[in-house]
Amino acid sequence: MTCTTDVIDAVHALAVRAREASHDLALATRATKDAALLAMADALVTAATPILTANAEDVARAEGAGTAANVVDRLRLTPERLEAMAEGLREVAGLPDPVGEVVRGSTLANGLELRQVRVPFGVVATIYEARPNVTADAAGICLKSGNAVMLRGSSSASSSNAAIIDALREALTTHDLPADAVQMVPATSHDTVAALMRARGLVDVLIPRGGAGLIRSVVEGSTVPVIETGVGNCHVYVDAAADQDQALAVVLNSKTHRTSVCNAAESLLVHADLVDDFLPRVVTALQDAGVTVHGDPVTAALHGVVAATDDDHATEYLSLDISVAVVADVDAAIAHVRRFSSGHTEAILTRDQATARRFVAAVDSAAVLVNASTRFTDGSEFGFGAEIGISTQKLHARGPMGLPEMTSTKYVVTGDGHVR
Amino acid sequence: MTCTTDVIDAVHALAVRAREASHDLALATRATKDAALLAMADALVTAATPILTANAEDVARAEGAGTAANVVDRLRLTPERLEAMAEGLREVAGLPDPVGEVVRGSTLANGLELRQVRVPFGVVATIYEARPNVTADAAGICLKSGNAVMLRGSSSASSSNAAIIDALREALTTHDLPADAVQMVPATSHDTVAALMRARGLVDVLIPRGGAGLIRSVVEGSTVPVIETGVGNCHVYVDAAADQDQALAVVLNSKTHRTSVCNAAESLLVHADLVDDFLPRVVTALQDAGVTVHGDPVTAALHGVVAATDDDHATEYLSLDISVAVVADVDAAIAHVRRFSSGHTEAILTRDQATARRFVAAVDSAAVLVNASTRFTDGSEFGFGAEIGISTQKLHARGPMGLPEMTSTKYVVTGDGHVR
Repeated sequence: MTCTTDVIDAVHALAVRAREASHDLALATRATKDAALLAMADALVTAATPILTANAEDVARAEGAGTAANVVDRLRLTPERLEAMAEGLREVAGLPDPVGEVVRGSTLANGLELRQVRVPFGVVATIYEARPNVTADAAGICLKSGNAVMLRGSSSASSSNAAIIDALREALTTHDLPADAVQMVPATSHDTVAALMRARGLVDVLIPRGGAGLIRSVVEGSTVPVIETGVGNCHVYVDAAADQDQALAVVLNSKTHRTSVCNAAESLLVHADLVDDFLPRVVTALQDAGVTVHGDPVTAALHGVVAATDDDHATEYLSLDISVAVVADVDAAIAHVRRFSSGHTEAILTRDQATARRFVAAVDSAAVLVNASTRFTDGSEFGFGAEIGISTQKLHARGPMGLPEMTSTKYVVTGDGHVR
Repeated sequence: MTCTTDVIDAVHALAVRAREASHDLALATRATKDAALLAMADALVTAATPILTANAEDVARAEGAGTAANVVDRLRLTPERLEAMAEGLREVAGLPDPVGEVVRGSTLANGLELRQVRVPFGVVATIYEARPNVTADAAGICLKSGNAVMLRGSSSASSSNAAIIDALREALTTHDLPADAVQMVPATSHDTVAALMRARGLVDVLIPRGGAGLIRSVVEGSTVPVIETGVGNCHVYVDAAADQDQALAVVLNSKTHRTSVCNAAESLLVHADLVDDFLPRVVTALQDAGVTVHGDPVTAALHGVVAATDDDHATEYLSLDISVAVVADVDAAIAHVRRFSSGHTEAILTRDQATARRFVAAVDSAAVLVNASTRFTDGSEFGFGAEIGISTQKLHARGPMGLPEMTSTKYVVTGDGHVR
């Protein structure tokens, strides 16, 4: 990957300022951080006019470029959406401070006192798509967890993001926190993403949020440690011993409650014993809900079902589509999941305790649900209060990431002249 | 980096077999794993003759190649060292099983039961230098934590490693565990390291153990998530309010107890108030212990002190050398640490509570010690029982890594037909 030296230098200069700011932030008390978060919330409301004006420019530019209506909708801010962003910051202020939490502690045999304490990462960078609300969310979560943040949003939202970040930075300074704790990384070219990926030693953690292509390119190209988020090819397995009414409701909810999100179901696995009764019933119910069913050979024999390929089984549709396969038993379901899952969320429907235990133990995903919709894999549903994303990697954080996941730890060891 | 396709294919084929084995290992009970660990220990003793014979070949080859005596010593096995390796496996059998530990759990408002449970990573690969004992240690720690392991040792130890791994694999099969849970990656060329670094999706975590060059090349080139270990440019700061006798003992212990290890002190910072009494005293004591002192201008005025450059302050000597600088106060000490530290371990000597709190809060290292030797940053000293290395990164694990650090987690959510 080539990248102009000027862009690298400019982004790295921002990172150095973020690093400086992170030193102050790491020492800030909860009281100071919460007061700043409330001031940031107020600042968004106070700056509604410049923010909405800047957003109108972004929206007009996107519409002029023929951007899809759903993308423009995600880009658009309204007074209500701005108020929701402010409310999100106030909620973060209400959450416990993860910094300083003692994760583990003991007195060793020689009298040394050992404590493992949560500390901020330092500088967090995030790369995300055209949702201006993410700008305020990420800034709030990082501030509360004591991290300086470098925000690299989409170029299509750059006027909105600049106006939001101006308001947030101004609010920080009124509470004796450095404005440089929140940095906007210009979205002028892809080079600024590449510069972040090379900022090892300057940026502690890089969190890409967006499509599979963005995430893969960051994961493969970054020398900065990455937390991978979000691709979900989520499976629902309906076992022979399922309560069929419950199963029908959970399949429909998992698939149709909201199709564009990573915890929506994309694949349905049905036990072979259910081919004659449940399978046609669930296929019809899905079709009645507007879902296109991509079925394996057995399922494709049913009315209106499209023949599925391996690609279908591997696809995160994010639309009113689902792949369906009939499996011989729970072990065949587990094998299918191992082959095709992205490791986000899988659910089993069964009344059989041993089958549930087998599925839970053998399926290696961030979340495994028993008799519940895949849609529950979510920081808010889990009661975390705030969520920076859903990790699908195994290192550091897995599943919904709340404030504690935005910290590292250090060991503090206290003695009185101890030597070995 | 170029890498022949054959080598990549061969290493990835091993990884696929490790992945298959990891499925069984993840479901193995503690009883099964502990029995296998005890059998592995016995197998090392039983196979003493072939292992020591193979090791003698490695040693002869190293000596023939003119390898440094200390490196040959690390490579050499004796009946006593082999027994110590076996004892290490028995100790791991005695440690609690991290797999299945419930890290967090609650019942949500809607009645869903949420549990965050420790699970193995899956496949762990480790790249290490010419210490055959690491082969058994890493195999034991990975087995206990439910991970299949791919061991890529040094080519200079390859006969020893092959004999050890043969014995360990044989022992696994006597306890219904797959031999492929322990894999030897050939050390035939650097290409096998490169192949591991590219095994994303096949290998879950890569742990390089060795010199700074190896670790940097893996960190920068790997698409597999890495846990960085071990470079320690550790500082001891002696404050104006230190107990000077304690400080002297801690400085000497930190520097001279064992010089070749990552938690040895490499830099000494002395408060300016101590220039006339403590500074000459500690310099003389270090020199009397055979240490070459590389001092800043103030220190270099003392007898026998070599003038230090910035490189000295940044160096992990791993020898009887230390850099010394005089600092105006604790904040200057913190600034020096921020500039030069590798983030492993720093110690402060002070009787002043506020100064200690300031240093602990502001120094961003894996371990911060108050009135204790840097040599205590160690899994065994911390009471972890087994240690795979000391992480100097902030993601996932920081500081000494025991069995819990060798796991990920998953969320298990149980309902009775819950939908959103």
